[in-house]
Amino acid sequence: MSELICAVRVTPVAFRDLPLLNSVGVHEPFALRTIVEVVTAGGQYGLGETYGDEPHLRRIEKAAAALVGTDVFDLHEMQRRVIVSLADDRQVGGHGMAGMVTTSSTGDRVLSPFEVAALDLQGKITGRPVSDLLGGAVRDRVSFTGYLFYKWAGHPGQEDDAWGAALDPDGLVRQARKMIDEYGFSSIKLKGGVFPPDQEVAAIRELRKAFPSTPLRLDPNAVWTVPTSIKVGQDLEGVLEYLEDPTAGIPGMGEVAREVPMPLATNMCVVAFDHLKPAVQQGAVGVVLSDHHFWGGLRRSQSLAAICDTFDLGLSMHSNSHLGISLAAMVHLASATPNLDYTCDTHWPWKRPEDDVVVPGALGFENGAVKVPTEPGLGVELDRDALARMHQQYLDSGIRNRDDTGYMRSVNPEWKAPLW
Amino acid sequence: MSELICAVRVTPVAFRDLPLLNSVGVHEPFALRTIVEVVTAGGQYGLGETYGDEPHLRRIEKAAAALVGTDVFDLHEMQRRVIVSLADDRQVGGHGMAGMVTTSSTGDRVLSPFEVAALDLQGKITGRPVSDLLGGAVRDRVSFTGYLFYKWAGHPGQEDDAWGAALDPDGLVRQARKMIDEYGFSSIKLKGGVFPPDQEVAAIRELRKAFPSTPLRLDPNAVWTVPTSIKVGQDLEGVLEYLEDPTAGIPGMGEVAREVPMPLATNMCVVAFDHLKPAVQQGAVGVVLSDHHFWGGLRRSQSLAAICDTFDLGLSMHSNSHLGISLAAMVHLASATPNLDYTCDTHWPWKRPEDDVVVPGALGFENGAVKVPTEPGLGVELDRDALARMHQQYLDSGIRNRDDTGYMRSVNPEWKAPLW
Ligand SMILES: [Mg+2]
Ligand SMILES: [Mg+2]
Repeated sequence: MSELICAVRVTPVAFRDLPLLNSVGVHEPFALRTIVEVVTAGGQYGLGETYGDEPHLRRIEKAAAALVGTDVFDLHEMQRRVIVSLADDRQVGGHGMAGMVTTSSTGDRVLSPFEVAALDLQGKITGRPVSDLLGGAVRDRVSFTGYLFYKWAGHPGQEDDAWGAALDPDGLVRQARKMIDEYGFSSIKLKGGVFPPDQEVAAIRELRKAFPSTPLRLDPNAVWTVPTSIKVGQDLEGVLEYLEDPTAGIPGMGEVAREVPMPLATNMCVVAFDHLKPAVQQGAVGVVLSDHHFWGGLRRSQSLAAICDTFDLGLSMHSNSHLGISLAAMVHLASATPNLDYTCDTHWPWKRPEDDVVVPGALGFENGAVKVPTEPGLGVELDRDALARMHQQYLDSGIRNRDDTGYMRSVNPEWKAPLW
Repeated sequence: MSELICAVRVTPVAFRDLPLLNSVGVHEPFALRTIVEVVTAGGQYGLGETYGDEPHLRRIEKAAAALVGTDVFDLHEMQRRVIVSLADDRQVGGHGMAGMVTTSSTGDRVLSPFEVAALDLQGKITGRPVSDLLGGAVRDRVSFTGYLFYKWAGHPGQEDDAWGAALDPDGLVRQARKMIDEYGFSSIKLKGGVFPPDQEVAAIRELRKAFPSTPLRLDPNAVWTVPTSIKVGQDLEGVLEYLEDPTAGIPGMGEVAREVPMPLATNMCVVAFDHLKPAVQQGAVGVVLSDHHFWGGLRRSQSLAAICDTFDLGLSMHSNSHLGISLAAMVHLASATPNLDYTCDTHWPWKRPEDDVVVPGALGFENGAVKVPTEPGLGVELDRDALARMHQQYLDSGIRNRDDTGYMRSVNPEWKAPLW
């Protein structure tokens, strides 16, 4: 018996986003994603979701064509064909990370949505949730983190959004209260790298006062020097559960790690299997933020988890702006990863509920957690009207590549990425 | 839908073995194995095979009882229950390795046959070969190594066996020719640690002359000192594809590795996930011999493979004396492991064809390789008459624990394990 892929549909979509600030600029009014539908000769379909930037979309389209005729259980052959399809790729960029990730494995990023779709199909074919194909859920709910951003009150030229401004400690505490009230999160992450470090330290201290026992994380996206990182890390002893990517690169992270009391986490200096050996050798990181979108899908993310377990690294989960297919995949993966040591990141609260491509109702937050779907596959179904609407939104948006920096400069022409 | 385990049958068996010499003595007339049958409420069964030593058999029986009621797709829950079942275990030994493995993870050794049986069942339930559940076969045949042993002409008091004596270079070359004629192997491993190192070096040189282009390995089971290991490794530059466990322990292996030209391989100093970090830190080994019997089954052996790939370690496969269930499992695992860098070890030629518990015909050697079964599950079926016969052989043999040393001393009371 084989279940051959007879078609792969690739659809870029856009969904409304809020003016969230980070070290490379500010989120544009729309975020991009690519939706992948893998269809078998038997007439079933599986879903995957990935970045929407143009070079990546072109790679996804090439890989999609190469995958027709493979068996959805033959993940190794799918990987081989994806890599072959990229052999003459000469594009640069398009990694969906707005310039914040220096290197990562292109093959794994392109493979990821197809691997997820194949597992969705394997689950539908066998009548099993994806978590079962990953060895079984060790938890029936997956907990997420309240992910705070400095933000403007609204996009320039538009009305203020429901979240309003957060440009100082009070604004962040207000944002945290609203997010925790609505979603029930029991941990907090602040995206930093926006204001000088002392202001961000002050914000963390205000959050600590307002939420005395809530685990806190700070992620300045590697815009601090080694001395600044060490100073902040020492200042925040006992306050942060981890400090995420304070400085750039494995050697610098190693220098910081030796001098600060809390673990350093990363989704920037360890973003591909090649980075793990030097990171371990240099003691650069204590926690790896896994992300199935750049680690080659769910099975390879489980390999990453096994590596973290074996080499005494903590494991957490990274997020970009995403839709429901990715949330379902993240939840299945997290449920079947015994050594997931921390709550997972998600941008979910920043997305409008009506902006999605999956039929509503399958995934919801309760006490900061999402129940693991128990239906066959990922447990989410494609809403084809919504997909068409979101694709039209993509066409109309005019955005083809994420460009936080360009958008920031359209507002403030003098703006430069910081290094403190 | 769930597929619950309603019964687990555990049957110790014995099969005839030949007087193969090694550093701890000589193989007894019978080798022991334990056969595990996992039965679902739906009436299907899955097979696993593991060591037969008594303390291990007792652990397997306890774990078997604890697994009733679990879903065969919930490998994580099975692992959890196995570990809980061992909580009050105070037995020592029984690892099936005749004193040659110093430490390994008891939980993983006990889990292994149940995990294999669960994957066999998953395959039968979904209509898929186990290789598909491991991500798909990247090769349709798995190549093995001709595994040479110094040996007596026959067991004391019995007639000479068909292989005859091999106690010098000529005997080994004769043995190699017979084995290659019958099985078609294109690589050779010599189990050493039996005679002083210069005699084993001479044997390797004779094998090189007789088989000029066949890759050669030598495995003295860690009975050489560091200086001896370095001397032998340097003497055999350009002759061995790898030198296996010349000396004991990660630090010693690290010392040797720095001074010899070929990679060092191991199934003795890296036999559990805990050993990988120190081995990598100390550069102790270049090749890990994976073995699903002690690495916790097929999925966890794939994690080991991912670790080897990530940390630039070569990957090969270890074998003990085994039957057809283990051979099928080894073949599926090897087929779905892209970074398997070397041909696999097997003791298969030393076993009589009629001594097995699986229905004959599913597995055979051609050109040194076994075709990967494409039937659902492992692709081997239990021969219940043969199982009963082999169990009776176990009862009659009187052997309850592998004891190569005791058997050697029954022949030569003065015998002591060597250290050169
Ligand atoms: Mg980050
Ligand atoms: Mg060995």
